[in-house]
Amino acid sequence: MINSDRLLHNLQRLRSFGECGNGVVRRCLSAVDMEARHWLLERMREAGLEARIDGIANVIGVSANPGKALLLGSHSDTQPTGGWLDGALGVIYAIEVAQALGEHPNTRHLAVDVASWADEESHYLGLMGSRSFCDELSEADIDAASNSEGHRLRAALAEHGLDQSARLHLQPDRYLGYIEAHIEQGPWLEMERLRIGVVTSIVGMKDLRLRFRGQQNHAGTTPMHLRQDAAMALFEFVQQLNQAFAGIRGEHSVWTIGQLNLTPNARSIVPGLAEANLQFRDPDQARVEAMSACAFALVDEFNRHHDVQASIRIHDESARAVAMDAGIQAALASAAGNCAPGAWRHMPSGAAHDAQVLAAHMPAGMLFIPSIGGVSHDFAEDSHEADIVLGCEVLAQATVQLLDHG
Amino acid sequence: MINSDRLLHNLQRLRSFGECGNGVVRRCLSAVDMEARHWLLERMREAGLEARIDGIANVIGVSANPGKALLLGSHSDTQPTGGWLDGALGVIYAIEVAQALGEHPNTRHLAVDVASWADEESHYLGLMGSRSFCDELSEADIDAASNSEGHRLRAALAEHGLDQSARLHLQPDRYLGYIEAHIEQGPWLEMERLRIGVVTSIVGMKDLRLRFRGQQNHAGTTPMHLRQDAAMALFEFVQQLNQAFAGIRGEHSVWTIGQLNLTPNARSIVPGLAEANLQFRDPDQARVEAMSACAFALVDEFNRHHDVQASIRIHDESARAVAMDAGIQAALASAAGNCAPGAWRHMPSGAAHDAQVLAAHMPAGMLFIPSIGGVSHDFAEDSHEADIVLGCEVLAQATVQLLDHG
Repeated sequence: MINSDRLLHNLQRLRSFGECGNGVVRRCLSAVDMEARHWLLERMREAGLEARIDGIANVIGVSANPGKALLLGSHSDTQPTGGWLDGALGVIYAIEVAQALGEHPNTRHLAVDVASWADEESHYLGLMGSRSFCDELSEADIDAASNSEGHRLRAALAEHGLDQSARLHLQPDRYLGYIEAHIEQGPWLEMERLRIGVVTSIVGMKDLRLRFRGQQNHAGTTPMHLRQDAAMALFEFVQQLNQAFAGIRGEHSVWTIGQLNLTPNARSIVPGLAEANLQFRDPDQARVEAMSACAFALVDEFNRHHDVQASIRIHDESARAVAMDAGIQAALASAAGNCAPGAWRHMPSGAAHDAQVLAAHMPAGMLFIPSIGGVSHDFAEDSHEADIVLGCEVLAQATVQLLDHG
Repeated sequence: MINSDRLLHNLQRLRSFGECGNGVVRRCLSAVDMEARHWLLERMREAGLEARIDGIANVIGVSANPGKALLLGSHSDTQPTGGWLDGALGVIYAIEVAQALGEHPNTRHLAVDVASWADEESHYLGLMGSRSFCDELSEADIDAASNSEGHRLRAALAEHGLDQSARLHLQPDRYLGYIEAHIEQGPWLEMERLRIGVVTSIVGMKDLRLRFRGQQNHAGTTPMHLRQDAAMALFEFVQQLNQAFAGIRGEHSVWTIGQLNLTPNARSIVPGLAEANLQFRDPDQARVEAMSACAFALVDEFNRHHDVQASIRIHDESARAVAMDAGIQAALASAAGNCAPGAWRHMPSGAAHDAQVLAAHMPAGMLFIPSIGGVSHDFAEDSHEADIVLGCEVLAQATVQLLDHG
């Protein structure tokens, strides 16, 4: 049904924007990210859609066909050192499905809209574009946002002339649902020699900010017993946290300290401040809440026994665990069974996706293809070409089934 | 003997270069550091010395008086967020002693040279100026050096025209010795209600670079048991290190992880790389070596049990424990007993100082005054005015005694 040559060609062309070795550096609202968005705009128009870049940098293509529509998409921005398929895959799939269906007499009446959401990867604001589309992003949120270099979101939007454009919002009753295809970003499909994952739920996640405030001092002259060493306090706390989480974790629980900064971060100075981000996820929202309560309790306990002052607060981008729509799961499962008999499974998504935002406003579903070695958020991320083509075919068949019987 | 008003005035004036709240930001070879050096040059000339800024940014004032000379000094550069007296005290003391002795009929024949050494605080190269003066710094060392922002030392020297000046080197047989006065930077004098410390030795120190290389990956989709999390590996290693060091430490042993960097340092990514600096010090060089051997052995042991690959190497600025000259200690003790009877002690220096470089080339000694709260390498660092004046008087009396009987 799909044109696999065009699919692979477009994926490689999108990769060329910000290509860096095997990977891609295309942070949202960078110059190269905007070049990619303008290229995507042209691809959507070629696919027969009315396409625009809106005031938050979403690229949205709308079908002129009557009747209920299906919305397909993902994101085209990347992590600081990102893979070439993360997000890009789902965007190019969506364009290919819209274009391929438009080329077939049997399907050209079907309405498929396409979106490339802005800043899924949190350069300014996580899941920014889908939140904007779903009316979950206020002007005040935009005013307050800046990236890790302190550059303000408002300024970045203005640099690209986007302050002159309105933000597009969800049109009530237009959509049967939203489907996002994505690389798995984990090892399960490959380990089990499967080719398609039908997502059952997206894990709940919390980001907590840990801060340890001690006394900055000279690393040679301050005796050990008189130190208030913020870094050593953090190290000790993490050991306690690891032990506690090991006691309450579930099969799919994960936790990560991915970001850590010492102040002043100099060799000869006892750190006066240590800040870290603690992120954890679980498909069961109750367990997410239990892990959060555990971390808060450990901070209280820590402060009863230490001079270094620990504090903890919830970061604003936490997401609740979200179930995928049963009807969309069934359509994806049917198409997967057709295209890859015996080589697919149901599975949770350990990563956050724009689909979790859309899921509060319409039926939503997700489709995974295998990641080689389970690697993602790294230049080394990759998938086999055969799996890439297969995944798009599954998405196309499920789309037709949902629209024909929707 | 000294002029305390002039002393305090000059200290405050030097503070004004890079003043930041109670502290000072005057990194070596910054614009404000060079302004301060030119101001110091004028002060040395006012004190009757032939003064120059040499090709490594040392400010050196030489007495025209005949006979053996005593060299007094310290450094005028600061840490990234430094105190106002660290280094500055010893430089202004040296100028004040040279000037005060020149004003007295009984002492104006004595030869006192003054130095403000460049980059004691390792912005480019630790103890850079004193190493250059003692012929311990090669042109290749200078070629290779850059600061933490990647700016090259050669470029920084050229920006200030210092590439046009020769480096000044120690003149053989000119000096009876070197004395450096400094704030204690530790809590001992204040805790024991003492006002002067006569330094017996400068601790030995090693800086080791720790590196943990894991696999960068997605923080949501990578199961805990399949992770190679470089940060978690580092945290675990530090716990093992703390336990091991607790077993071999001496009374004055200290160790610090002051610098730590995760890559890519993003909230949603399992860190693929964690790098940290481990610094430790002890007055007993044998214990420094034992701590180093222990850290290396722990890395070997760690690698036998972990997928994350740990490595360790010695950083190039390690210093051996150095004893201060007995004759200079005696002169300082005699002057301290005279100026502060019963309120002084012998003590080791936990911090590195230019005196440890000079000590390999001439008799060297150090004098401490109390640090309020033991705080240093922090904007909050301070000392009482009465102690500041007293310390300079002790230095002046010891200088006269050594030169008169040298």
